[in-house]
Amino acid sequence: MHITPTQLTQLSHDILAAYGFTPEHQKSITHTLVTAQQDQCHSHGAWRLLGLIDTLKHGKISATATPTITQDVGSIVKIDAHMGSATTAFSVGLPRLIEKAQQNGIALLAINHCVHFSALWVEIEQLTQAGLIAINSTPSHAWVAPAGSTKPLLGTNPLGFGFPRINPQEPYVFDFATSATARGEIQLHHRHGTQMPEGLAIDAQGNPTTDPAAAMQGAMLTFGGHKGSAISTMVELLAGIAIGDMTSQESMAFADGTPTLPYGGEIIIAIDPKILLGDDWTAHQQRSEDFLNQFNASGARLPSQRRFKARAQNQQQGYIELDDNLYADLQNLLTLAN
Amino acid sequence: MHITPTQLTQLSHDILAAYGFTPEHQKSITHTLVTAQQDQCHSHGAWRLLGLIDTLKHGKISATATPTITQDVGSIVKIDAHMGSATTAFSVGLPRLIEKAQQNGIALLAINHCVHFSALWVEIEQLTQAGLIAINSTPSHAWVAPAGSTKPLLGTNPLGFGFPRINPQEPYVFDFATSATARGEIQLHHRHGTQMPEGLAIDAQGNPTTDPAAAMQGAMLTFGGHKGSAISTMVELLAGIAIGDMTSQESMAFADGTPTLPYGGEIIIAIDPKILLGDDWTAHQQRSEDFLNQFNASGARLPSQRRFKARAQNQQQGYIELDDNLYADLQNLLTLAN
Repeated sequence: MHITPTQLTQLSHDILAAYGFTPEHQKSITHTLVTAQQDQCHSHGAWRLLGLIDTLKHGKISATATPTITQDVGSIVKIDAHMGSATTAFSVGLPRLIEKAQQNGIALLAINHCVHFSALWVEIEQLTQAGLIAINSTPSHAWVAPAGSTKPLLGTNPLGFGFPRINPQEPYVFDFATSATARGEIQLHHRHGTQMPEGLAIDAQGNPTTDPAAAMQGAMLTFGGHKGSAISTMVELLAGIAIGDMTSQESMAFADGTPTLPYGGEIIIAIDPKILLGDDWTAHQQRSEDFLNQFNASGARLPSQRRFKARAQNQQQGYIELDDNLYADLQNLLTLAN
Repeated sequence: MHITPTQLTQLSHDILAAYGFTPEHQKSITHTLVTAQQDQCHSHGAWRLLGLIDTLKHGKISATATPTITQDVGSIVKIDAHMGSATTAFSVGLPRLIEKAQQNGIALLAINHCVHFSALWVEIEQLTQAGLIAINSTPSHAWVAPAGSTKPLLGTNPLGFGFPRINPQEPYVFDFATSATARGEIQLHHRHGTQMPEGLAIDAQGNPTTDPAAAMQGAMLTFGGHKGSAISTMVELLAGIAIGDMTSQESMAFADGTPTLPYGGEIIIAIDPKILLGDDWTAHQQRSEDFLNQFNASGARLPSQRRFKARAQNQQQGYIELDDNLYADLQNLLTLAN
C-alpha cells in the first residue's frame, strides 16, 4: 500500500502515545522509523514498532524515561537514557556533542542504559548535516562467535560512519553489522523456510550451516573473518566497557530469554574538519568529491546510494511503500492499546 | 642467526646515521623496527631499513626533518613531519596527545607529510601503556580496488586499535591491512613463483586471479567485501582528506613510479577511560578482562597474542632471530654508505 510520510508519522505517534511513550520518545522514535521506511530500508522501518511494543510489554524499555546529562567535561558528554529509547537520548545529547566538536575539534557522546532498535545512519546524517565527521556504534545481543570460536561472545555490533559531502543530502555514510549477515536475514529465511547462503553461521556443534534453525541454535559469524571479529570486539570494548555499559552478552542476559531489543550503551564520536583545516576545508572537501566521484565512474557503488535514491524517489512521489500486512499489524497494535 | 636486541639496535642506529638520519629519526625508527623484529613480525622488522634507504635515495624521505607542531587547540594536535619518518613525528606529538586525552577525555593527533614504513601497533602500545584506548590509521599507495570496481582507488590502509588490559604488557591490540592480504604477501609469492590463494586480487581486466604477477598488474581486493571496502574508504577520508593530506592515489602519484614508501598523513585518536568512568574504571576494566578471557577459553585467539608470546620468548632467551641474508644486506648497506 501507499502511505504519505505525514500519515505514517501520525500513525507511529498514535501507537507510541497509546502505549504511554512521552512526546519526546514519540518524536525521536518516529523520526528514525519513518526515515528508514522512506529510504526503503524496511528492516529498520515501521515494523520495528512491533518489537518496541513487545519490549515494553516485557518491561525492558521505559516509555516515560527522561534522559539526563550525567557528565559534561572537556570533550565528553554522557547521557543516561534511564532505559528509554537511544533515539531520545541522542536528541538530548546532540546539540552538546556538536558544540563540543566545533569547539575542541573532536568530541565523544556516550549514551548509557538505552534501548536500541533501529539504524545508526539516521544519527550519523544529523551530524554530517552539521558539517561533522561521525562514527557511532553499539553492542547488541550475543549471537555472533568470534573467528576461531563456536561460542557467541559478540553482538551484531553495527558500525556507522559519515563524512559530509558538498551536497548535504548525500553524505558518505555507511552503517553495517559487523556480523556476516543481519539477524533479521536469518529470521526471514527461517520464516520462509529457505536455506541461507554459506559462510554466515555455524550450528551448535560449530559446523558451518545454511539451515536458519540450526544457525539460530548455533552462532552467526563475523564479516571478514578474524579482521571483522577484531572490529566487533572493539565495539564491545569501546561502546560497552569503556562507557561503563553492557557487553552484548550482558544485554542478552538482561533480556532474560525474552525476545526483547538490545539494551546498553552507544558511543558517538564527532570530528569537525573545519577545526582541523580551517579555511582549507573547502578545498580539501572538493578533493574528497573528486576521490569519491571515481567510485561510481569505476563501477563501485558508494554505501547509502541506494537509500538516497529511494528517498529522493519517495519524496518526489509523496508517498512511501508499506507492506499491507504490516499496516494491519500496526492498526491492530493501536486497537489493542485503546 | 641470533642477534641481541642491543646489537640490532646498534646496527640500525649505525645504518641510519651513515645515511644522515638525525639522532631523533635513528631512535624512533630503530625502536619501531626492533620491536617488530622482537615480535617475530619479520615483514615489519629490520628488513624495512632496505626500503627506507631506497626511499631516501629516491629523494622521497627527509633524513634531517624536524617535526613541528602546527596546531594545538582544544582536543587537537597537528604535527608536520616535513617529509620525515612518521615514527619521529609520533614521538613529538605523543606527550601532547596523552595530556589532551587525559584532560578532555578524547583527543586527536594528526601527522602530516610523513613517510610510513612499519607497524601501527608500536604506536598503539605506547598509548595503552599510558592507560588510553587508541585508534590509528593511515592511507598508503593505491593498490586496492573498492568492492564492485576494478580500479585501484584505495590503499592497503591499515587500521590499529588498542584497549589497555590489566597486564600492561598485553593490551588488546589489533593492527591489520583493510586489504584482503598485505602487499608484501603478493610480492613474496611473486619472488617464490607460487600461486596466491583465491579471493585476494583481480587482474588488469578485473577477473579474479591467483597469479601474483597478474595481481600486481591488476588490483588487490579489500577484506570483507563491501564492508571492508567501506572501512578502507573511511581511512582515506579520515586519515587523508580530513587532515588535509594525501589519499593513497596521491601518495602513489607522489612516488612517481619509484618503489618508495607511502607518503602522507596519519590520524591517531586517544580516549581516556578514566575520564569517562572515573574510579569506576577499575571495576569495568575487570569486566573487560572477564570478557576477553572467554575468547581463549572458547578457542578464539585474541589479536597480537602470537606477537606477545614471541616477544616474551625473545626477551627470555636474550636474542632475536634474524635472517642471515638480511643481516648480510644490512651490513652491505652500512659498507656502501661509508
